[in-house]
Amino acid sequence: MRTYLDCIPCFFKQALEAARFAGAGKKTQKRILNELAGVMPSLSLASSPPEMGKIIYGLVRKFTSNKDPFKEVKDKSNRLALGIYDKLKKKVSGSHNRLLTAVELAIAGNIIDYGVKNTLDVNKEIKKILEKEHKTIKKESSRFFNYPKFKRVLRKAGTILYLADNAGETVFDRVLIEEIKNSYRDKQIIYAVKEKPIINDALAKDAYQCGINKVAKVVSTGLDIPGTVLSLCSRKFLKIYKDADMVISKGQGNFEALSEEIAASKKPVFFLFMAKCPVVVRHVKCKLGDVILLC
Amino acid sequence: MRTYLDCIPCFFKQALEAARFAGAGKKTQKRILNELAGVMPSLSLASSPPEMGKIIYGLVRKFTSNKDPFKEVKDKSNRLALGIYDKLKKKVSGSHNRLLTAVELAIAGNIIDYGVKNTLDVNKEIKKILEKEHKTIKKESSRFFNYPKFKRVLRKAGTILYLADNAGETVFDRVLIEEIKNSYRDKQIIYAVKEKPIINDALAKDAYQCGINKVAKVVSTGLDIPGTVLSLCSRKFLKIYKDADMVISKGQGNFEALSEEIAASKKPVFFLFMAKCPVVVRHVKCKLGDVILLC
Repeated sequence: MRTYLDCIPCFFKQALEAARFAGAGKKTQKRILNELAGVMPSLSLASSPPEMGKIIYGLVRKFTSNKDPFKEVKDKSNRLALGIYDKLKKKVSGSHNRLLTAVELAIAGNIIDYGVKNTLDVNKEIKKILEKEHKTIKKESSRFFNYPKFKRVLRKAGTILYLADNAGETVFDRVLIEEIKNSYRDKQIIYAVKEKPIINDALAKDAYQCGINKVAKVVSTGLDIPGTVLSLCSRKFLKIYKDADMVISKGQGNFEALSEEIAASKKPVFFLFMAKCPVVVRHVKCKLGDVILLC
Repeated sequence: MRTYLDCIPCFFKQALEAARFAGAGKKTQKRILNELAGVMPSLSLASSPPEMGKIIYGLVRKFTSNKDPFKEVKDKSNRLALGIYDKLKKKVSGSHNRLLTAVELAIAGNIIDYGVKNTLDVNKEIKKILEKEHKTIKKESSRFFNYPKFKRVLRKAGTILYLADNAGETVFDRVLIEEIKNSYRDKQIIYAVKEKPIINDALAKDAYQCGINKVAKVVSTGLDIPGTVLSLCSRKFLKIYKDADMVISKGQGNFEALSEEIAASKKPVFFLFMAKCPVVVRHVKCKLGDVILLC
């Protein structure tokens, strides 16, 4: 997805909130906004929003000297999500369609997102997931929820590349990966995280903290961008991407970064996310809060 | 009220929406945002948001050559509000506290605002006013609704300066002015509009279209700023301001422009508006949607 003009006010909002989150005083907050304003005229609308995200959070890091402002939030998200791991597993094992439930939970876990909402109450979000996830999906298949195709491709895929989104959400991903492995024992699953801190996106240590390494091989995209922008990924990662039979792409950031790039390719990439931003909603033509499984 | 850092993303949003409203294509929209970004570093946070409003809408005028993008909206707002003039009068005459009802209606009329909300469905807004205005005020006096003081000062004031806000709202102002004149026959009322087009703010022709000239003397602040920034007003207006015994200031724009300037003065200025913007809400410490009568 390219950058829309409506993303520009939001970039300033994100920069301001991230600056505050990183502990910047008012002068530094204003300086970061000024620097962002300086970059704005050279912004190409052909680039995807996550590329701008790299610039925004880069400015925050530069002027606050806080290399990982979301470190504590990520750690807390992991711990809280791990705390309900058993409940999630019980939801799956008690379901008459275990895989579908695991998919729903993995998408619901995408609620844990700082970048879009600029606020994050992990406790509240997790409570919402546990209470509501079964109400969100009315049927197995809809225009925005192509579960039948997901299942069909999954059945045949040997190697599955799973693109991570946020810390905490990683526990929900683990539950889905475990269910995939439970349904199809021969699958090789590779879980790709960010190389360096960017917002609350999962890093390798988050994947390990959430036990993903027990069920998948953890790799890095090579990026500190809140989305998998292929043209900027490491060579090592691109080889993995090329060799994968199927890609499960989590979150809006990965959707924004990949959706146009893969449009012309034959690679089966499934985008699993909650529609949380009005621009994405207009682009996809879905509704705010929709549970999305697109291919 | 000074400009808060949270106003900055909103300035970009307003610029984008106004550019679209003025019929700008995507290239021109981007150019306007770029120009605004260029101005941003020199923005003083000590100035009030309406001063930035002048710059934003000035850029839109410059790059679209549309001198009055809201001309039709203003005309429509006036016509629709005039269409319910009789209903408004009936509400006042049927009330056991006519002046209070007229004050409530005048504030409710402040819903007709394009600048803050970036959308404007006048029909819907007017329907809301007619249905809800009696529910908004629970009691005659609260921390944010100082009607007793308003009435006390009004009783003694000889000359009242009424600072207009938006077109359409002008009809609601007329109803209040008529009720003031009905309650106290000796009052001289001066109605101040903007000199040149700015957003959907009322101009002299709107005041005439709504019949204000039948009940008040119509003057201009000399500004094309969406708020009465005293330091920039015409000399002629400043003399009127100085001589007035009481000021009734309508809308958030006038509140933002005047609230700090008058803090040290003894001039009784009453701010009547709907709290529509989160930054103003935080500044006043009220709630979004509150009906405000502050002194």
